Amino acid sequence: MAMVCLSDFEAYAKKYLPKIAWDFFAAGADDCNTRDENILAYKRIHFRPRLLRDVSMMDIRTKILGTEISFPVGIAPTGFHQLAWPDGEKSTARAAKVMNTCYIVSTYSTCTLEEISAAAPGGLRWFQLYIHRNRAVSQQLVQRAEALGFQGLVLTADLPYTGKRRDDVRNGFRLPPHMKLKNLEGAFEVCKMSPSFHSLLDPSVTWNDIYWLRSLTHLPIIIKGILTKEDAELAVRHGVQGIIVSNHGGRQLDGGPATIDALVEVVEAVQSRVEVYLDGGIRKGSDVLKALALGAKCVFIGRPALWGLAYKGEEGLQEVLRILQDEFRLSMALAG
Amino acid sequence: MAMVCLSDFEAYAKKYLPKIAWDFFAAGADDCNTRDENILAYKRIHFRPRLLRDVSMMDIRTKILGTEISFPVGIAPTGFHQLAWPDGEKSTARAAKVMNTCYIVSTYSTCTLEEISAAAPGGLRWFQLYIHRNRAVSQQLVQRAEALGFQGLVLTADLPYTGKRRDDVRNGFRLPPHMKLKNLEGAFEVCKMSPSFHSLLDPSVTWNDIYWLRSLTHLPIIIKGILTKEDAELAVRHGVQGIIVSNHGGRQLDGGPATIDALVEVVEAVQSRVEVYLDGGIRKGSDVLKALALGAKCVFIGRPALWGLAYKGEEGLQEVLRILQDEFRLSMALAG
Amino acid sequence: MAMVCLSDFEAYAKKYLPKIAWDFFAAGADDCNTRDENILAYKRIHFRPRLLRDVSMMDIRTKILGTEISFPVGIAPTGFHQLAWPDGEKSTARAAKVMNTCYIVSTYSTCTLEEISAAAPGGLRWFQLYIHRNRAVSQQLVQRAEALGFQGLVLTADLPYTGKRRDDVRNGFRLPPHMKLKNLEGAFEVCKMSPSFHSLLDPSVTWNDIYWLRSLTHLPIIIKGILTKEDAELAVRHGVQGIIVSNHGGRQLDGGPATIDALVEVVEAVQSRVEVYLDGGIRKGSDVLKALALGAKCVFIGRPALWGLAYKGEEGLQEVLRILQDEFRLSMALAG
Amino acid sequence: MAMVCLSDFEAYAKKYLPKIAWDFFAAGADDCNTRDENILAYKRIHFRPRLLRDVSMMDIRTKILGTEISFPVGIAPTGFHQLAWPDGEKSTARAAKVMNTCYIVSTYSTCTLEEISAAAPGGLRWFQLYIHRNRAVSQQLVQRAEALGFQGLVLTADLPYTGKRRDDVRNGFRLPPHMKLKNLEGAFEVCKMSPSFHSLLDPSVTWNDIYWLRSLTHLPIIIKGILTKEDAELAVRHGVQGIIVSNHGGRQLDGGPATIDALVEVVEAVQSRVEVYLDGGIRKGSDVLKALALGAKCVFIGRPALWGLAYKGEEGLQEVLRILQDEFRLSMALAG
Repeated sequence: MAMVCLSDFEAYAKKYLPKIAWDFFAAGADDCNTRDENILAYKRIHFRPRLLRDVSMMDIRTKILGTEISFPVGIAPTGFHQLAWPDGEKSTARAAKVMNTCYIVSTYSTCTLEEISAAAPGGLRWFQLYIHRNRAVSQQLVQRAEALGFQGLVLTADLPYTGKRRDDVRNGFRLPPHMKLKNLEGAFEVCKMSPSFHSLLDPSVTWNDIYWLRSLTHLPIIIKGILTKEDAELAVRHGVQGIIVSNHGGRQLDGGPATIDALVEVVEAVQSRVEVYLDGGIRKGSDVLKALALGAKCVFIGRPALWGLAYKGEEGLQEVLRILQDEFRLSMALAG
Repeated sequence: MAMVCLSDFEAYAKKYLPKIAWDFFAAGADDCNTRDENILAYKRIHFRPRLLRDVSMMDIRTKILGTEISFPVGIAPTGFHQLAWPDGEKSTARAAKVMNTCYIVSTYSTCTLEEISAAAPGGLRWFQLYIHRNRAVSQQLVQRAEALGFQGLVLTADLPYTGKRRDDVRNGFRLPPHMKLKNLEGAFEVCKMSPSFHSLLDPSVTWNDIYWLRSLTHLPIIIKGILTKEDAELAVRHGVQGIIVSNHGGRQLDGGPATIDALVEVVEAVQSRVEVYLDGGIRKGSDVLKALALGAKCVFIGRPALWGLAYKGEEGLQEVLRILQDEFRLSMALAG
Repeated sequence: MAMVCLSDFEAYAKKYLPKIAWDFFAAGADDCNTRDENILAYKRIHFRPRLLRDVSMMDIRTKILGTEISFPVGIAPTGFHQLAWPDGEKSTARAAKVMNTCYIVSTYSTCTLEEISAAAPGGLRWFQLYIHRNRAVSQQLVQRAEALGFQGLVLTADLPYTGKRRDDVRNGFRLPPHMKLKNLEGAFEVCKMSPSFHSLLDPSVTWNDIYWLRSLTHLPIIIKGILTKEDAELAVRHGVQGIIVSNHGGRQLDGGPATIDALVEVVEAVQSRVEVYLDGGIRKGSDVLKALALGAKCVFIGRPALWGLAYKGEEGLQEVLRILQDEFRLSMALAG
Repeated sequence: MAMVCLSDFEAYAKKYLPKIAWDFFAAGADDCNTRDENILAYKRIHFRPRLLRDVSMMDIRTKILGTEISFPVGIAPTGFHQLAWPDGEKSTARAAKVMNTCYIVSTYSTCTLEEISAAAPGGLRWFQLYIHRNRAVSQQLVQRAEALGFQGLVLTADLPYTGKRRDDVRNGFRLPPHMKLKNLEGAFEVCKMSPSFHSLLDPSVTWNDIYWLRSLTHLPIIIKGILTKEDAELAVRHGVQGIIVSNHGGRQLDGGPATIDALVEVVEAVQSRVEVYLDGGIRKGSDVLKALALGAKCVFIGRPALWGLAYKGEEGLQEVLRILQDEFRLSMALAG
């Protein structure tokens, strides 16, 4: 089976993943309008291709928060990688390291931060955090991540409650018994992953909690979920180092803007004071180029990374990244 | 069968209601463009979600004309609830009371106002009125409603004649013999419900008749069917207390605006002098939030209430309302 | 079979007409974009419905060029009515007279002008003219029409050559042997109707030929096919009495505007100096109201008239007209 | 089988060409958005048809770079005509000569320039050039073309690398063994046509290489692939004689503009200093007229020419051209 483009991986995952895993990864909130808009919005953005520029040498490396990555595509934080591949997040970490890019590890990993770090020593990793009602849990996670050499702290700000993903409700989604949210074990009893599960998260978090986070760690703080200029301005004022324009893959509030549409106003608002990234809807290399042309420093892929894992674990994910890298380089050349 | 969202109830109703009842409830005028636009228009309205606001406590109660309801969704006036459930409007009244919201009882009920009142004593109810050629009929209805404790009078202004609902014509729709328009019995002979039936209504009604209505009752008057700023201004000048932006569920004039699109100009025109509500196209909690964000004080659901009844009577309707309530609360939290 | 709306007649005609006749009537030029746009454009035009106006009495009569018709819908000139019904244009004339409206008789009738006049004495009829290379033919037709009491002369200006209707080419469309273009018999040998047939028409006709027509007859001249303000202005300057905004049912140039879209600029250009009519895309009463609201004095129906004939001859056509009349009146009432 | 319009030829080619050839000709880059937009964009452009102009005599001849052609449609450069018809580019040349129009011969022909010239002596031909890493190859080709009487040199500027055509990758497309890129034989070893093949092209070409080309030949230089006003201005400044607005049939960068949309800004930018042509999306005569109305001097057809060849070799291609010619003439007449 020749994997030519990302939708080949999607088709594979849809066919070979257990239905409950596919449904969980694919789910969007409500009618999935925002999930689908994330992709459709790219089609409405047209290049103005320029010709006869010397494109024999192209440097697609970039730096995020001062660290070089081989090309501007990282791995967004998604949970439960063991649903896609037995080795779970360890495979993800290995693939990201081989490809020399950044992997944002989710709080809801099925491997511990320690296992992930050990699987790919020296790889560039950020840690994604939810703030729990029990702040000691979050504090402990942040400090574990920092101690393990994670280089950034990504605060997900768009999940005070879990969005309504109809398929998950219908399926009564829960993790298979042999998988655990290992990073949270001991912190509290987590016997199942269900919509109520997220009630462990604190919906009273506000911008002031950024100061609390800052007091816990020397890591740069990146805030994920910003979609408006107003919040972008607040993020800058509260001293974050980066912003990920995200709508949680369309899994939270249905009816918000596509991330590529929201990107422009965020970029304008921050005026280069912090780095801006994006996730959502990236399906080919020219999507990456569009995001960069509109001001993103780097993009992160969510579902496509899971499809890669589902195909062949770390090799599959590398293949996904390599395809995006090749397509991105080609798009750059063709757009001049 | 898990009922996760309102379209599950719609699918149930389509499958299990007698075809003639389903067709009657579903029917739109002519090509059903306006009926369908009511729903589609919401997809074109995007949120600007805000983050990191404390959403641990959310108060979704509101007041309409001074009376508190538990959340801003009421029951729009629709006729013939016995077509959906044997207990008809009595079930509707009970569900509305349990959920602590407002039920607008239709003139064309299959239970008497007295039966409805007795079924759910103390519930908040408004009475929907058509003005008949025989004004004594209308006067008597208004006075019965006021005596029974109804707290508002809703004048439907967009039905001087019945719209052309092709399926009703094809089906030769009429009420089954064991159902009656009980509120009109005695007033005149109503042996069947057919398109001609509505010729009992007075097409010569004008704004001056608001004064006549005012002379009959102390109840606040709400006018239903306004779609333009011009008519909104006239409504305010004629002393009504509320406006329901409505196109009769797309059952009257095909080719008018979606209600959510018309809402904005009505809200601007009245400048808070009267309360503005909306019906039409509400299918999920975020639709409610959009309507409120655009200035509606409360929305009313028509067809979804009938689907709830069709599913399990008052329990089914409660379930519909509870789903909307949960989705609305979640949308508020996620939109910040 | 209940005929509730015009699309019921369309479905009937599609099912029961010989394929070659259905194809000929349905055909549009090239990809049929303009034919289809004629209909779709109405959906983009929204009413602003007004309420509480006394609509108990509605006068839907109008006058065109000084003659009263019972409602503002006439019969557009289409050819070959015997393809739809054995009595052909005689039936059309009878139906138009019964409904008291205007019938524009095509040059390409399968009955003579004399037969048509005799079938419905006293009916309001205009005569549609193409200018032939042999001007004597056209002159004779005009004078026959005037002598027979036709009250207007409609010059079709958008057919210097026949449009490319792919289905006609594929079908090798020609009239069945027992049908004749009777008005042209004797004038020249017309043994078949084929695309080349129209080469008898004169493609060198210009605005100056309006003066020539004027010299032939006292009848008011209406020009059919105008789609731009520039040509509308020229029409007024050349002294015509009326303009029919038309794209020949999308059968000529594919890629022009829908007639309802072109109407506005034509109406603005002529500033009431001449009457403006419209054909194309009328499928329900509210379409008629939209055209009138945008400045048309009256509309003419083409294909729907043929479907009516195909259903039951003059009775079928009456039924089509009566449905449009009822729908138009209802739309007026509901739009206030 | 009656060939009435170009899509008939497309259907034929899809049915009767070997799949690998059909796929190769049909392929677009990535999701084929730009390939499809080329066609769809025409539907959004509406004529303003004018009436009553004398269209009895129409001259559809035009001149490109001083040479008269019988109508403003030429043959765009496409490769591998033997995939469509055994005689390959010799047939193309004969058809173009018979129809008295311009044929732009591709570098990637399966016949030599000499064979093509000999097949249709005296025909108007331009030569399409890629600049190879080995400049001597390109120089030799230019000089052979000039010596053979080619009258223009078309530099394709949008292929520094080959676009990603998924179907070609999946098919592992390569030329059948009995076909050769004959113009390149001897110059270097070309054993297969694969995506890597194009690495023989020089991606470091810049505007300065126009001067190098100019030093090689007296032929006028036309640059192909311009889509922006900025590049149009650069082209004029670098002394080219013509511009072909092109996105390589949507085979290079997916996500650029449709050519008919880009045409306007290019035409405005050059202000008649050079001639502007267009390829892409032409499927009927009215498309040609739209391109000319927007400022193109002539259009070139790519895929439709291949369909014509696939149908019946040079006769098939003549038929395609004749249909376009007839449709174009008719559109002109009907648009006034």
